[in-house]
Amino acid sequence: MSVFLKEEYLTRVAATKKAMEARSIDLLLISQPANMNYLTGYDGWSFYVHQCVLVSLDQEEPIWIGRGMDGNGAEITSFLNKKNIIRYQDDYVQSLVKHPLNFAADVIKKNGWGSKRIGLEMDQFYFTHRAYLELEKDLPDAVFVDANALVNWVRVVKSENELEFMRRAGQIAVKVMDAAIKNINVGSRECDAAAEIVKAQYAGTPEFGGDYPSIVPLMMAGEATKTPHLTWSDKKFKADEAVLLELSGVYKHYHAPIARTIFLGSQPPELMVDTGKVVIDGLAKTLEFIKPGITAEKIEAKWREAISGSAIVKESRLGYSIGVNYPPDWGEQTISLRPGDKTVIKENMALHLIPGIWYEDVGFEIDASIQVTANGCVELYKYPLNIFTK
Amino acid sequence: MSVFLKEEYLTRVAATKKAMEARSIDLLLISQPANMNYLTGYDGWSFYVHQCVLVSLDQEEPIWIGRGMDGNGAEITSFLNKKNIIRYQDDYVQSLVKHPLNFAADVIKKNGWGSKRIGLEMDQFYFTHRAYLELEKDLPDAVFVDANALVNWVRVVKSENELEFMRRAGQIAVKVMDAAIKNINVGSRECDAAAEIVKAQYAGTPEFGGDYPSIVPLMMAGEATKTPHLTWSDKKFKADEAVLLELSGVYKHYHAPIARTIFLGSQPPELMVDTGKVVIDGLAKTLEFIKPGITAEKIEAKWREAISGSAIVKESRLGYSIGVNYPPDWGEQTISLRPGDKTVIKENMALHLIPGIWYEDVGFEIDASIQVTANGCVELYKYPLNIFTK
Repeated sequence: MSVFLKEEYLTRVAATKKAMEARSIDLLLISQPANMNYLTGYDGWSFYVHQCVLVSLDQEEPIWIGRGMDGNGAEITSFLNKKNIIRYQDDYVQSLVKHPLNFAADVIKKNGWGSKRIGLEMDQFYFTHRAYLELEKDLPDAVFVDANALVNWVRVVKSENELEFMRRAGQIAVKVMDAAIKNINVGSRECDAAAEIVKAQYAGTPEFGGDYPSIVPLMMAGEATKTPHLTWSDKKFKADEAVLLELSGVYKHYHAPIARTIFLGSQPPELMVDTGKVVIDGLAKTLEFIKPGITAEKIEAKWREAISGSAIVKESRLGYSIGVNYPPDWGEQTISLRPGDKTVIKENMALHLIPGIWYEDVGFEIDASIQVTANGCVELYKYPLNIFTK
Repeated sequence: MSVFLKEEYLTRVAATKKAMEARSIDLLLISQPANMNYLTGYDGWSFYVHQCVLVSLDQEEPIWIGRGMDGNGAEITSFLNKKNIIRYQDDYVQSLVKHPLNFAADVIKKNGWGSKRIGLEMDQFYFTHRAYLELEKDLPDAVFVDANALVNWVRVVKSENELEFMRRAGQIAVKVMDAAIKNINVGSRECDAAAEIVKAQYAGTPEFGGDYPSIVPLMMAGEATKTPHLTWSDKKFKADEAVLLELSGVYKHYHAPIARTIFLGSQPPELMVDTGKVVIDGLAKTLEFIKPGITAEKIEAKWREAISGSAIVKESRLGYSIGVNYPPDWGEQTISLRPGDKTVIKENMALHLIPGIWYEDVGFEIDASIQVTANGCVELYKYPLNIFTK
């Protein structure tokens, strides 16, 4: 049984078809796991083999195509009719002579879509160059159109059900960061702290079980605080070192990321304290500024203005859109808070603002995960905006 | 500091160059995270943006190309010289006007490789169709060759250091399955059991810290035992239902997968018991048969022969090669134990045999993770080959 009611999925499919029509796309072939989930409810860790969902303007329900053994999983987790769940044989898997996209092309031809305008997610992981070549070879009469992020853009304004899931994720995020702060101590191993963090992620709250995040706990201690995407080792935490944490609460694949900085000592270095003050103040001013009608780049400009009296230079984007996701990314790959992004912010969008600093001499992370409301924004969780000292 | 000594990486690079020469490839562009790690030591969760490693016949060390903020991570985790770590600016990330592969093409041209024969991993996730298009546009004089799985095939015979890591992963695997069997009980939530399982994965043993697996805990209870790739929910386990588990111990990204079946009652259904007997017996006979010199398909044929007196039909492959890996797959995407795979088995290969059964009326999983030795094979861990009843 799918997580949401069939009606919610059909609303999403209808919005997707509207976006397809606007770009004269007759048939959409989707393989990003979050997009497959969003349109059908399908939820399995089967995305290490080729699989896809087809959305055609002339059919109400999408078609799921995947590996034979995963068809029962699609029956269990999606809202789709059994007849729309189509399984390929196992000898298509990682073969040099057959490719799952040959099978998908056969399904497309059988449905009379072989000469249609077909939209493809041309720059998303899970759609390889070879996938394209096989389609091109098998569908010589089709016209292929880049529909990268088409469904991601449909996802960008959340439904009330989705926002409720993100608030649950926010409740889990608080427990996750609590577990991190409790278990990161001088002399304990990084892996043992990561174990307690991930335990909190999966267990969730007594009311809402947790889920796996699209990104494992990022944990940078000591020298590693000059970079944002490392994971733990079996080293022990040392006195007077900082630890950067980028984590998330997750409920049924909906994310509420949470990032904080710990200092293992009573007195963090002056540079870290000063950096923290500027960043925290800048984040607060930026949050006050966010409301429907402004553009993504204006949010970033507000942030830049707020920190302009300081020595801080942040070259990377300030944040991005969040929602349902699967590894390797909890970012939606739509809105980026940076110069040039002219997306107009709307009610019920959700953003992760992470003004992280990863310099050679100081690292600092703090963040906010927010929902845009009618007049401003609201955080998915409340968590102290401090450097945590221990 | 990289996990292995520089010499081990240079040996791997040399073997890769030999494979390149055999296919007349001058330059190899690699973006599969496991291959990047294998050739350089680089270890960061940054593979949600485009990044790559270049291996050129005319340079001893590879070049790492990635996002600016991840350059420090490459300095920390890889063996590479600083000058071989090249960072692109943040506005290449998920942009519609610039693409990280444009930057990679510039690096290729600057090094005089713009008209070389360039090998690409054309069917691996993390190398999108658009990545190819950008390279094709920017390097009009280059000749592109499919080098999919070229490095994967170099990885297929493990070094003694790698095998030691896999044995450590095997020790962790035992603790992981112990945690699963202890925490899966009638009335407890699936998510709470998953939380204890993943805690055991990350914590590892007192001697060896664990790592994140390339596949999260797969856990199918009740109706879901008819499919292999679902994860947990917040439902409670019920009496007299079976639970299938496919897990792994992991040490520094080296995997030792472990799969078992639990029945929450004293007497599993007759069909499950009978199926279990046949599968366990067939697996034992197959393991006795494995040794260097036979082919992958012969191993599968032996399995089929061993179960031929039963009603069991297994359509999916019996197993595959394992080693270092990153999400979404711990399979190496080289050897598949199935008809048609004529790979000759060699000493120090490592295989995961998983004769799982996912029928409508019965599900059953059990497995073995093995190293091929001079005369046979040895398991990476010992764990009882039972249906566990509780």
